[in-house]
Amino acid sequence: MTPKISQFLAEKKPQTPCLVMDVDEVERRYRDMQAAIPPARIYYAVKANPARPLLDRLVFLGASFDAASWDEIDFCLSAGARPENISFGNTVKKVSAIKAAYEAGIRLFVFDCIEELEKIARFAPGSRVYCRLLVNNQGAEWPLSRKFGTTPESARKLLLRARDLGLDPYGVSFHVGSQQISTDAYEVAISRAGALFADLAADGVRLRMLNLGGGFPIHYREDIPGIRQFGQTISRALTAYFGNTLPEILVEPGRFIAGSAGVVSSEVILVSHRGYDEGPRWVYLDIGRFGGLAETEGESIRYELRTARDGAETGPVAIAGPTCDGADILYEKSGYVLPVTLEAGDRIEILGTGAYVSTYCSTRFNGFLPLTEYYI
Amino acid sequence: MTPKISQFLAEKKPQTPCLVMDVDEVERRYRDMQAAIPPARIYYAVKANPARPLLDRLVFLGASFDAASWDEIDFCLSAGARPENISFGNTVKKVSAIKAAYEAGIRLFVFDCIEELEKIARFAPGSRVYCRLLVNNQGAEWPLSRKFGTTPESARKLLLRARDLGLDPYGVSFHVGSQQISTDAYEVAISRAGALFADLAADGVRLRMLNLGGGFPIHYREDIPGIRQFGQTISRALTAYFGNTLPEILVEPGRFIAGSAGVVSSEVILVSHRGYDEGPRWVYLDIGRFGGLAETEGESIRYELRTARDGAETGPVAIAGPTCDGADILYEKSGYVLPVTLEAGDRIEILGTGAYVSTYCSTRFNGFLPLTEYYI
Repeated sequence: MTPKISQFLAEKKPQTPCLVMDVDEVERRYRDMQAAIPPARIYYAVKANPARPLLDRLVFLGASFDAASWDEIDFCLSAGARPENISFGNTVKKVSAIKAAYEAGIRLFVFDCIEELEKIARFAPGSRVYCRLLVNNQGAEWPLSRKFGTTPESARKLLLRARDLGLDPYGVSFHVGSQQISTDAYEVAISRAGALFADLAADGVRLRMLNLGGGFPIHYREDIPGIRQFGQTISRALTAYFGNTLPEILVEPGRFIAGSAGVVSSEVILVSHRGYDEGPRWVYLDIGRFGGLAETEGESIRYELRTARDGAETGPVAIAGPTCDGADILYEKSGYVLPVTLEAGDRIEILGTGAYVSTYCSTRFNGFLPLTEYYI
Repeated sequence: MTPKISQFLAEKKPQTPCLVMDVDEVERRYRDMQAAIPPARIYYAVKANPARPLLDRLVFLGASFDAASWDEIDFCLSAGARPENISFGNTVKKVSAIKAAYEAGIRLFVFDCIEELEKIARFAPGSRVYCRLLVNNQGAEWPLSRKFGTTPESARKLLLRARDLGLDPYGVSFHVGSQQISTDAYEVAISRAGALFADLAADGVRLRMLNLGGGFPIHYREDIPGIRQFGQTISRALTAYFGNTLPEILVEPGRFIAGSAGVVSSEVILVSHRGYDEGPRWVYLDIGRFGGLAETEGESIRYELRTARDGAETGPVAIAGPTCDGADILYEKSGYVLPVTLEAGDRIEILGTGAYVSTYCSTRFNGFLPLTEYYI
């Protein structure tokens, strides 16, 4: 938690649940990533948090943007981003969205299959396109599954086809999975991309861009490798597989830029022993899986918690959200402990919640309003 | 799909994704349940779908309401429900919500632990309270876990304590799990409740109400027992365990009342073979897990699908939502098939989506607006 957020919470005591974001921390994270991966141009993954104050700051810093939909492109343009700095990074796009993007001047589109490529050729003629490779997501705490990406053999055919369709076969992307804690994942993926570049060069197509995707982890409850370690692995792999003719390098961090800049402030509604002689206390908060903490599904993302009673004796707890839904449990198996004196009315700060929280929030499940957001 | 919904979709061709609800079907379902379980008073579980036209109709029909939050109580009061027909049915309530409810005239509250009971005694003095029993959720497709309810021994102590705290120990509730397809689940739970009634009578406390909860299933892709079968099992169990001195019986259907009255109309964004020689086609829709279809988590709720090409040859598919999230997959393992001629731009109707869809929808994940709702 940054000093600015601590001070804001102490002074304003905002109603819970709310998200407080330190926009200066967003800037620090952006600069850290630039320093750690110098050849890369940063395309902020808007889906992580599309709030205007955050986009404004990133536009000011000269960032580029990875948009998942026409609406996200529109958010970026409204914040002053230039179309040539926006990538339409969703492999699944409505025709109406492709048209709107093209009319707005967007010329960079991702695809992973012939059907999508043909839509782009028709409704965004002449655009630069890049093909998403399917790579192993092992090591990722929020893996991206088989939903996206294609095989190297298929990518090769598709990029040749792109040329024949009058598009500019610009490059290749991959995504190692979100909150990826293994630096090796990037090395393996870069080697596959290098081989594809070579194969296509043999076919007479010179790709010029490699998009490393996002997935860079942030500190939650457990320790993770720092961004400099990722930078070193990436540098080494780029040299090994591309030598001195480095293509343009893109990265698409979302969590890394926005995650640690945000804190959710919540209130304990109930602490209960549930009438069992054994087992943990149950702690119910006024935010849960449907109020924004969707990434606690399967206890995948394990947030760090702060209470005003920290330092006191602790005991095991299960932690759940405020809705009548049995699936609205944050942690039951991950060994969380909280102070034994914790009681209803206490505040709990949930750290690292600047990314993938406000946007997952349900419109009004169980009648609860979406969490309020403060950008300071 | 009701004829009224078919006609609306055919004539209006509304933009997708949208939810179309036939409010007359809500009324039919309400009457079906009344006929099937005559002794029960129906407390509609507002969380299933709190839309005003639906609440209006249910108020007109003389329904009562099970609310999960102060906001849901407020929705019901605004629609003209009387406070004495509203139960505050969430075992986890903020003090501010208890106060607001009490001031509005609500006098029926659930609890499952001493800490919540003490809050109710303090901020809603003299109210009727009922204790939620933990029961086995086996057979439920959306089970409610260990998050709610307590043991019979603990319930007995708590209801005695309620009396000592100046509250009215009114009854007992349980919940067999949502989309519960085993009628036996109710029988087992009613027998446990019967034993608790007898134990408390021996302690000098005469409970007067038994709340059977909700969980009554609706037809999705698979066949399920009809509501009359549930009614018969419940009748038999009530007679077996309560004899001729039947307490007041409450039921809290949500899905059963609203589910089958709604259809989501969506559009196919992409059909792709993903570059694999084998395996299913991938069909991407403009609605997914974060656009409202949250209950497809773990492929728990398997919706029935309709396309304009039904009747043609079919082939296996995986079905996914429109976001860049790898978790946004609806069905990969449940053996769905769709017409082989299906293509981008086609509409797909998702049946039985009147409950637990519109409210789960995220505020704006990946930039996508919440689905539009039509009540006809």
